[in-house]
Amino acid sequence: MRLTQWTDYTLRVLMYCAATEGREQPVTITEVAEGYGISRSHLMKIVQQLSAQGLLETTRGRGGGMRLMRPASDINIGAVVRMTETDFNLVECFDLATNQCRLSSHCRLKSVLGRAMQAYLAELDGVTLADLVPSGPALAAAPRGGTAHGRVQWVPGLPD
Amino acid sequence: MRLTQWTDYTLRVLMYCAATEGREQPVTITEVAEGYGISRSHLMKIVQQLSAQGLLETTRGRGGGMRLMRPASDINIGAVVRMTETDFNLVECFDLATNQCRLSSHCRLKSVLGRAMQAYLAELDGVTLADLVPSGPALAAAPRGGTAHGRVQWVPGLPD
Repeated sequence: MRLTQWTDYTLRVLMYCAATEGREQPVTITEVAEGYGISRSHLMKIVQQLSAQGLLETTRGRGGGMRLMRPASDINIGAVVRMTETDFNLVECFDLATNQCRLSSHCRLKSVLGRAMQAYLAELDGVTLADLVPSGPALAAAPRGGTAHGRVQWVPGLPD
Repeated sequence: MRLTQWTDYTLRVLMYCAATEGREQPVTITEVAEGYGISRSHLMKIVQQLSAQGLLETTRGRGGGMRLMRPASDINIGAVVRMTETDFNLVECFDLATNQCRLSSHCRLKSVLGRAMQAYLAELDGVTLADLVPSGPALAAAPRGGTAHGRVQWVPGLPD
C-alpha cells in the first residue's frame, strides 16, 4: 500500500516551500531537486500543477522561483492527497470498467475498504502543511551562483 | 493508493469459502477462479499461503478442495491485510535503504502518514470475514462433473 510518487513529491515540494517561507529568494526547482535527490523534469510538472491549483506562485527568469500562494497553515494535507491520488480503487472490483468479479453486487468488501480509506483521509484532514515542517524559516539561504553548494541544511537549533 | 492484487485475491478466496461454509463439497480452485474471473495459478499460490497460515484446510484428490479452518467470525480482516500487505512504506523516505531525502530525519510527514495508516487498519480491525459475506451458506452448490456450469450464483432471497 503506497501513495503515488506524484503525491510523495508534491508533499515534499510544498514542505520545502513552507520550510523556506520568509526567505528573501524564492525556491528554485534545482534547489529542491538537489535537496531531495530527485529529477528536475519530474519536479517541473509537479510545480506546474501546484501553480495551476493556486498553491504555488512562480516567477520566471534570474532570481525567479516559487513561493506558497497561501500560508502553510491554510494548506490542508487531506485536500492535497485527495487532489494528487487519483486512484482510490483499492481493489479491482472498485473499478466498474475492469471488474471481473461476479459477486461484486452482493459484496460488502467495497464498503468496508471505503470506510477504512475515509478514516485514512480523515486523519490527514486534521493536518496542515504548517504541521509538517519546523516553524519559521528553517532552511539555510538558497545558493547563489550555482548549485554545487545547494545542499539543504536545516538551521540548527530550530525545533524539529 | 491501492491494496496489492495479492491482498485483493486473498480476501476474495476467504470470502468465497465463508459464503459456502456448511456446503457439503469443499470449494475448488477452479470454482473460485471461474467465480471471480482470475487465474488458477495465481490462486494456487494464495491458497497455499492461506493454508500455511492456518486459515484454510485443503484436501487433495477427487472430491477435495478447501475449507476455512476457523469460523469466519474469528478471522479478522485487519490481521489478514497486515499479513498480505508487506509494503507499508507509503512514501520513499519510509524505506531507509532507498531514501534519497536529506531532510527526512527532521520531517514530520512520516509520523502523520503512519498515523493515517493506523486509522485505516484500525477500521479493518473492527471487521471479521463473517461481516463481509451474507450469513449462512449463500452460494449455490458447486458444479459436479465439470466447470462449464461453475458460475457462482448467490442464492436469491438471502440477505446481502
